[in-house]
Amino acid sequence: MSDETFEALLQRRGVLIERIVSHGHVTPHDHPYQQPHDEWVMLLSGAARLLVEGEPERSLAPGDHMLIPGGARHWVTFTAPDEPTRWLAVHLLGAAG
Amino acid sequence: MSDETFEALLQRRGVLIERIVSHGHVTPHDHPYQQPHDEWVMLLSGAARLLVEGEPERSLAPGDHMLIPGGARHWVTFTAPDEPTRWLAVHLLGAAG
Repeated sequence: MSDETFEALLQRRGVLIERIVSHGHVTPHDHPYQQPHDEWVMLLSGAARLLVEGEPERSLAPGDHMLIPGGARHWVTFTAPDEPTRWLAVHLLGAAG
Repeated sequence: MSDETFEALLQRRGVLIERIVSHGHVTPHDHPYQQPHDEWVMLLSGAARLLVEGEPERSLAPGDHMLIPGGARHWVTFTAPDEPTRWLAVHLLGAAG
């Protein structure tokens, strides 16, 4: 499996935009993602499912987007095994809650 | 020609994320875009060319991205006539210059 890559596209005061490329990667159940700030994500290509604690699991197709609230544990539960899945993530560093 | 559409996807203090869908639209030469804040754009689908004053014209394919500095006049000089061109724009409202 190829590595999952994280590429910072823009860093400004209060905002970090990054592109993430996944190849079938999922988040281990006992190691969720969790960050103090709100994070907005859009799926650019491929396919994925995302689970945010306390919310229904979401299937994401290209163009779909959602907000991951600061502090919420979340897991990528699926990315396409046969094509790259590209995400755009906008970290709202000054806008938690 | 279909209308060009602007859809706000997220508004937070200091950040506005919007999706723009163009169908062959270009910016009239005598009516450039110009805003006081930095604006980061990524092409999501389709094809476009963007001219920022003082810089070489850029051709954009899906996944290409660039920063439009606050205050700079700019023009979309081409969008694909035969398919929708989708842009993601992140307006950095507190981060000009």
